[in-house]
Amino acid sequence: MRIFYSGTIAPPSNIDQKQVSQLKMQAPLQRDTVCFTSRPDKVNQVSFKGPDSIGNIEQAIFSNKEGATSNKNILGGKGYGLAEMAGVDLPVPPFFTLSTEICKLYQKENKLPDDLMPKVLDHMREMEQQENKKFGDPENPILVSVRSGAPVSMPGMMDTVLNLGLNDETVQGVAKQGGNSEEAKRFAYDSYRRFISMFGNIVLDLKEKDRNGNDVDLFAKKLEEYKEEKSDKLGRKAQDTDLDVNDLKSLIKDYKNIVKEKTGKDFPQDVNIQLELAIDAVFGSWNTPRAAAYRREFKISDDLGTAVNVCSMVFGNMNDNSGTGVLFTRDPDTGEKGLYGDYLTRAQGEDVVAGIRPTKPIKDLETEMPDTFKELTGVCDKLEHLRHNMQDIEFTVQNGKLYLLQTRDAKRSAKAQIKTAIDLYNEGLVDNKAKALDLIEPNRIREALLPIFDPKEAKNAVKVTSGLNASPGCGTGKIVFNPEEAEERGLAGEKVILVRPETSPDDVAGMFKSQGVVTTRGGRTSHAAVVAKQAGKPCVVADEKCKVDLDKETFTTEDGTVYRKNDIISVDGTSGNIYKGAIKTIMPELDDDFKTIISWAKEVIGKNVQIRANADNGKDSKAALEMGADGIGLCRTEHMFMDKSRLPVVQEMIIADTPEARKAALEKLLPMQRQDFKEIFEVMGQRPVTIRLLDPPLHEFLPKHDDLLIEVNNLEHEINRSKGSLSDAAKLEAELAEKKATLEKVNQLKEQNPMMGLRGCRLGLTFPEISEMQIRAIVEAACESKKEGNDVHPEIMIPLTTNFNELKAAKDQVDSVAKQVMEEKGIKVDYKFGTMIETPRAALIADKLASICDFFSFGTNDLTQMTWGFSRDDTSKLVQHYVDKKLMDNESDPFDVLDPNGVGQLMKIAVDKAKPVLEKQGRLDTFKISICGEHGGEAESVKTALGVGLNCTSASPYRVPTSIISAAQKVSADKKSA
Amino acid sequence: MRIFYSGTIAPPSNIDQKQVSQLKMQAPLQRDTVCFTSRPDKVNQVSFKGPDSIGNIEQAIFSNKEGATSNKNILGGKGYGLAEMAGVDLPVPPFFTLSTEICKLYQKENKLPDDLMPKVLDHMREMEQQENKKFGDPENPILVSVRSGAPVSMPGMMDTVLNLGLNDETVQGVAKQGGNSEEAKRFAYDSYRRFISMFGNIVLDLKEKDRNGNDVDLFAKKLEEYKEEKSDKLGRKAQDTDLDVNDLKSLIKDYKNIVKEKTGKDFPQDVNIQLELAIDAVFGSWNTPRAAAYRREFKISDDLGTAVNVCSMVFGNMNDNSGTGVLFTRDPDTGEKGLYGDYLTRAQGEDVVAGIRPTKPIKDLETEMPDTFKELTGVCDKLEHLRHNMQDIEFTVQNGKLYLLQTRDAKRSAKAQIKTAIDLYNEGLVDNKAKALDLIEPNRIREALLPIFDPKEAKNAVKVTSGLNASPGCGTGKIVFNPEEAEERGLAGEKVILVRPETSPDDVAGMFKSQGVVTTRGGRTSHAAVVAKQAGKPCVVADEKCKVDLDKETFTTEDGTVYRKNDIISVDGTSGNIYKGAIKTIMPELDDDFKTIISWAKEVIGKNVQIRANADNGKDSKAALEMGADGIGLCRTEHMFMDKSRLPVVQEMIIADTPEARKAALEKLLPMQRQDFKEIFEVMGQRPVTIRLLDPPLHEFLPKHDDLLIEVNNLEHEINRSKGSLSDAAKLEAELAEKKATLEKVNQLKEQNPMMGLRGCRLGLTFPEISEMQIRAIVEAACESKKEGNDVHPEIMIPLTTNFNELKAAKDQVDSVAKQVMEEKGIKVDYKFGTMIETPRAALIADKLASICDFFSFGTNDLTQMTWGFSRDDTSKLVQHYVDKKLMDNESDPFDVLDPNGVGQLMKIAVDKAKPVLEKQGRLDTFKISICGEHGGEAESVKTALGVGLNCTSASPYRVPTSIISAAQKVSADKKSA
Repeated sequence: MRIFYSGTIAPPSNIDQKQVSQLKMQAPLQRDTVCFTSRPDKVNQVSFKGPDSIGNIEQAIFSNKEGATSNKNILGGKGYGLAEMAGVDLPVPPFFTLSTEICKLYQKENKLPDDLMPKVLDHMREMEQQENKKFGDPENPILVSVRSGAPVSMPGMMDTVLNLGLNDETVQGVAKQGGNSEEAKRFAYDSYRRFISMFGNIVLDLKEKDRNGNDVDLFAKKLEEYKEEKSDKLGRKAQDTDLDVNDLKSLIKDYKNIVKEKTGKDFPQDVNIQLELAIDAVFGSWNTPRAAAYRREFKISDDLGTAVNVCSMVFGNMNDNSGTGVLFTRDPDTGEKGLYGDYLTRAQGEDVVAGIRPTKPIKDLETEMPDTFKELTGVCDKLEHLRHNMQDIEFTVQNGKLYLLQTRDAKRSAKAQIKTAIDLYNEGLVDNKAKALDLIEPNRIREALLPIFDPKEAKNAVKVTSGLNASPGCGTGKIVFNPEEAEERGLAGEKVILVRPETSPDDVAGMFKSQGVVTTRGGRTSHAAVVAKQAGKPCVVADEKCKVDLDKETFTTEDGTVYRKNDIISVDGTSGNIYKGAIKTIMPELDDDFKTIISWAKEVIGKNVQIRANADNGKDSKAALEMGADGIGLCRTEHMFMDKSRLPVVQEMIIADTPEARKAALEKLLPMQRQDFKEIFEVMGQRPVTIRLLDPPLHEFLPKHDDLLIEVNNLEHEINRSKGSLSDAAKLEAELAEKKATLEKVNQLKEQNPMMGLRGCRLGLTFPEISEMQIRAIVEAACESKKEGNDVHPEIMIPLTTNFNELKAAKDQVDSVAKQVMEEKGIKVDYKFGTMIETPRAALIADKLASICDFFSFGTNDLTQMTWGFSRDDTSKLVQHYVDKKLMDNESDPFDVLDPNGVGQLMKIAVDKAKPVLEKQGRLDTFKISICGEHGGEAESVKTALGVGLNCTSASPYRVPTSIISAAQKVSADKKSA
Repeated sequence: MRIFYSGTIAPPSNIDQKQVSQLKMQAPLQRDTVCFTSRPDKVNQVSFKGPDSIGNIEQAIFSNKEGATSNKNILGGKGYGLAEMAGVDLPVPPFFTLSTEICKLYQKENKLPDDLMPKVLDHMREMEQQENKKFGDPENPILVSVRSGAPVSMPGMMDTVLNLGLNDETVQGVAKQGGNSEEAKRFAYDSYRRFISMFGNIVLDLKEKDRNGNDVDLFAKKLEEYKEEKSDKLGRKAQDTDLDVNDLKSLIKDYKNIVKEKTGKDFPQDVNIQLELAIDAVFGSWNTPRAAAYRREFKISDDLGTAVNVCSMVFGNMNDNSGTGVLFTRDPDTGEKGLYGDYLTRAQGEDVVAGIRPTKPIKDLETEMPDTFKELTGVCDKLEHLRHNMQDIEFTVQNGKLYLLQTRDAKRSAKAQIKTAIDLYNEGLVDNKAKALDLIEPNRIREALLPIFDPKEAKNAVKVTSGLNASPGCGTGKIVFNPEEAEERGLAGEKVILVRPETSPDDVAGMFKSQGVVTTRGGRTSHAAVVAKQAGKPCVVADEKCKVDLDKETFTTEDGTVYRKNDIISVDGTSGNIYKGAIKTIMPELDDDFKTIISWAKEVIGKNVQIRANADNGKDSKAALEMGADGIGLCRTEHMFMDKSRLPVVQEMIIADTPEARKAALEKLLPMQRQDFKEIFEVMGQRPVTIRLLDPPLHEFLPKHDDLLIEVNNLEHEINRSKGSLSDAAKLEAELAEKKATLEKVNQLKEQNPMMGLRGCRLGLTFPEISEMQIRAIVEAACESKKEGNDVHPEIMIPLTTNFNELKAAKDQVDSVAKQVMEEKGIKVDYKFGTMIETPRAALIADKLASICDFFSFGTNDLTQMTWGFSRDDTSKLVQHYVDKKLMDNESDPFDVLDPNGVGQLMKIAVDKAKPVLEKQGRLDTFKISICGEHGGEAESVKTALGVGLNCTSASPYRVPTSIISAAQKVSADKKSA
């Protein structure tokens, strides 16, 4: 076994982390290399190999099926897929893979390792023997593709060079291989032309910018010019296929001139140099801005690196009995079983993916090449059984013979993820429900819950056009044509729709920040479709009669209507319809598959972990139940204060100068809050409802300071001016006095750092009457509900606790008011008492806090703010800068994904301190330790939280399914590793 | 041994904490009582006694010398002192002590334990036997005092009742004991009168308020009335001594009427009831607001409780051969050896302490009662040898026989603490330097460094008056007569001087918040003097010809000059002078004793702990050296930015729109900063200098937001009004545009929570040119200094690190600029690189941070803010509220005294994580872990910091001596317990 992995970078996610840590401990600090061999989903064996292996380039190159016993992190997805296919004798061309380890060496030195090329050429010799051809041989040359392939799929993000090995001599050899027929010559020179163009663009990076700042492909431009010339001669629009051998030779001359002109050097004729430059370029493409942006968006580690696959070329463009295609083993939008994809005859793979020529649906292949279609169907079945997952395949037919060029686990919509998971289980391809659930990305499941356009409104809306439903979902926004503008305006919070003729990998950042994407070219597997689907953005490929003019920034539909920049359109990627103007969205009905998956997940989770929802009213509580929540984990009472009709009373309460005046205002709020709680209790029945007492600083409820300051100043000016008109002045003076009083109160409550000021339980202990009103409202509502036969379980939660003594005082408040109310009402309610853990100190004294609590809930927003010293309100730009410049230890914004090392560690300290106290008190089993806030609905964060010992999560209702699936995955993974 | 201590409260500070913790672990949770026996400074034996002991009242009462083997925490200072004196056969009257444990029961139930009084009466029977008298006996009665006595001295804060046991019958018995002479009768009835007055005031709480809200002593008022009447009869001003037996009987009748009138009940004639009520009142006085305020100021735990001492009365007022006094074994201001104090003949103790009658200096006693003086001198010597410390003694002479009523370790000025420590060591009373250092309160030593009035200015100033130098120090402020007003205005930051005829325990809160205290009555041991000394406030007892009129709020000097409220005066408590107006202060010269103590402390500390100072310029650095600092632990570079002449350049730098413009401004700052650093290096020589890169948010350097907002609005109004006058408008428009641009920049930089925003290393990583300038300035200065022959050791410190990656980036910045500068200058400088630990996350990843650092410094201000979620700028009122309501786990503001449980725990986690990494790298010995900021100069905080494993502190120069003494105490304590 000659596979190795360097432990100095993040270990692959499918490895048992504990095993790796143990091995790292044994390894010397300066170079702790860990080696292992594995099957894709499961590491069989992990062993420590020592620090020397890094120097051994030979061990980092894999030929053909050699890699089948390795894994994706070493070979990249493409290389490993090829190796696996070779391993079960599926038809793949001869190939070898330069593993990601070489990429890491490349990253370090910013050049290929010195001893790489001799080893690569050894492997070329091997390939020559297999193909019985020679690299650079003028008579019988072998051509190769040099393709990137990272451990995680990044479609179109990195570079690929095809037809490598062609030069002025070998091009004739290729013609000879085809019998030197006119067709063979045309094929050979066309391939040479394509190769120079690709090599020039990718390896030599010869792009130019036009006046709009868009990239211009110099070779494509030359081709267009040539075709226009040819059109004039033909008297009709010339196609690529109209170019004859002489045309191509002439074009090749022009192409070589472009290279000479731009680089000052001749196009390299030495095939070994071609190969070296191409490998260098592909490794280098790992670090292009677009690849980095893509990784950032999808939280892929920069440390993974890409592999490079050198593969003997097969030609879908050899003749009419040749072709190339991309297909999914199931429908990636719906999950329906059956081949799904596009192909083109007489074409190379890039033609299909780039969406430049109109493709045919895969079902047409059944008629056009019935044997190949049959063989492909068998291949799909074999691959799904091999990889226990739906596949995304690239294939080429060369002169009637099928070759597989790639297989990978298929990216698919949330809906398709759900359906595939259920179907694969039912078909026996995965053998238990937990494994089926592992096929779902929990963070994407909420796409299945995305709002849809209200059918009633859509029916009456003006339709812009209908097109191909390339990626599901609905989005409304202003038309923008420039992807950079889309990115910028999207970042600023504006809703935009990106409209392009087609998209290229350079456009991804703009696509990510748009509400939807419209192209006028491409198919369901085009770049736009693939990326949009992955990003969960709706995408429609408009009817081809629609035109996009990037210069004029217009989009013209088939009936000649012109849409301009900033016109609002609504894109329905599920139906393929585009509407004029904005259309209201509604929530979709939950389908049976969704319900099935949630019920499987809850089965896997079992009884020891609760998944709750955050909800502040009856409506949200209903949504929470529908999403599968076990209860309410966080009811924020301040949301009830913010209600427009109540705000004046709340302000009255705050401005009150005496406890008595404050109590009077609070008495008006009491029945309102009580009613809120009653509604929630009615919806939730006997499920637990955690209610947090007032948390935010009081000035949040008052008018804005700067507005008041200006109003006061304006009034003073006005009074100055109106001297003379006494009646006016008196009125103004009165108004001024009132504003000044409010301003004074706002100034009194103004804080330098309100996040760490008078808020949370500090409020309720400084103004006890506020807490007392809230506790009374909760317990009165509970008593009344219980009287009505509803066995309610309220849980009263104290925010921002920092001291044991303050929590004790808060508990005394709760218990004393509750006792009083229950006596008044003559009924006993089973309420619980607990606290948020939001300050680092609370986590550090969790043992003491636990002794008087029934539950904890980690408020990881605040805990992250304080642990990091990052104010969430102020640091979004800073965080972006930090992510970009890798100044953070984490790959994601710690407010999006829970920081496992800092905040997670603090949570673990808290849990580890609390548990022995609870165990001693015999309350460990009933004690709930939760996380609430948005981290509770994010997949990785849920796993971190359960990993440190929490037994409950809570998040907004539409994030609950994510929590459930993620928790199920974590529970089953823990069972496996136990 | 029948001594016990309840472990549910804070254990006494002189016990080995580890031993107590271990015992607590074994004890059941609900009641973990720990018992021990001890000598005052050293616990001999700690044993666990179990939960039952609490019920045993008998075990909590100690007779005479029984308590000598116990300790102060059980018996209180007074009771333990008495027991110790009894133990070595010094003359103390028979007594017994109700220990603090009973106080705790009292606190819990808010009443005396039911079974207490029978036990008390048993002890009365014992005392009767010893004195051969009977309690309540009409023939030969015994009288007792009932005195409070807490473990920590709280002079005058709690209650005392004297002459208890007198009633209409026993008063005749007392007269009989004196042979029924006229003098004996007078004494008996005078004692009875005093008793009713004291009992009425203290036990029955019969005070009234006058129209100014001041307490009126109804009995004193009645006495004055009676004396005025008598004066009319005598034709001269009557003294107390002018009252004859009939007068006294008549007064007693009036007094009893006051009691009857105010309480509706007769004055209690049952002596047992008198005793019970008095004990109840004294235990209750632990919780009076003034006692609570005192404990808060001096950080005394509310849980300690007071003991109550019942002591057979001796009478200093029996006859002319009787007297009473208070003395110190050495001068409490200077530390000079020799008896120091005041006494009065024919008086009871309260007369001396209250300062109502003019006292005589103790040296007069040598002439007046030579035998007693000689005996007293011997007693003082014996007591100093017994207690290894300077003593503060109360004595009474009854008919020529000396009785000691109290001894305690003497409170003394910082200067006296220093001198005493040196003298006691030299005299052999303490046997090593470390023990001598233990006699110093580190937090008070800076009083010896308090500024003094500039003698030149003082010489030319108008002198208000000269008086008794009752407490050293200098203070300037506005005259305030009402102590509550003084407290309020002092709290608000105003400088006030409290002027009173005399002070009472009710005035302490006002004294604490004043810059100084002036009284017109009392001596050096008066209440005002004792409290002022303890609080480190200057106090002058003005010449007795000066008059204070509280009604008119005037202070009239001997020459008739009237000073009114809010007039500014300057009080020199060292010389006794009071000056008109404000006088500049200067730093005092350091004396040899101070230098001796610092050198002893550094000897005790040894080489493993460094005490450094915070300094930002050459002047502060010089002060640091003078104070004994080993180097600079924190040079804050922002202070250099704040300099008036530089601020415009700093603003130019901030407002810059491009990195180039910013660099241009920074280039102007570079030579300024370089010069600053050079000056510091020159002062510090080869000592290390830690320099922190820019820390605060940039907007701190810009004009205030609200001011700008108003200016812009005003300009807009002005422009509106000036329509017509075009030239004006243009000028205004230009001004407006400029203000608006600045406002926009201020708005851009404005943050919701600047404490957790763009500051610290985030600044230098967002605007690298700022850090680069600073690093360049440091290294250039270092290179230049080194060229001049100065072997400098700069340490560059990164503020607010949160991530390993950001620290690594900052290190790369430092190393690269340093390398460049050193190459330019052609000289190598030995610089170090380190980071502040200010965010909880930094503490949690300290292992990673340590791997690339040479040192850490804990910024416990920020760390406290973030660990607690308390913004220091916003929570001072909240903290006060929390301290008052006991909502905090700590007894002090966590910004004053380092929170050992939360922040300290986090520091310990950091140190424990870093050390193994450093050990592995072989750098543990050279790695510096420091604390900087004001905690680094606070005694308890220094001990906490060293306790968690730090080896360096840094604080402002004048706090360095505190750090040094505190560190020495900690190092020697650790050696003892090791």
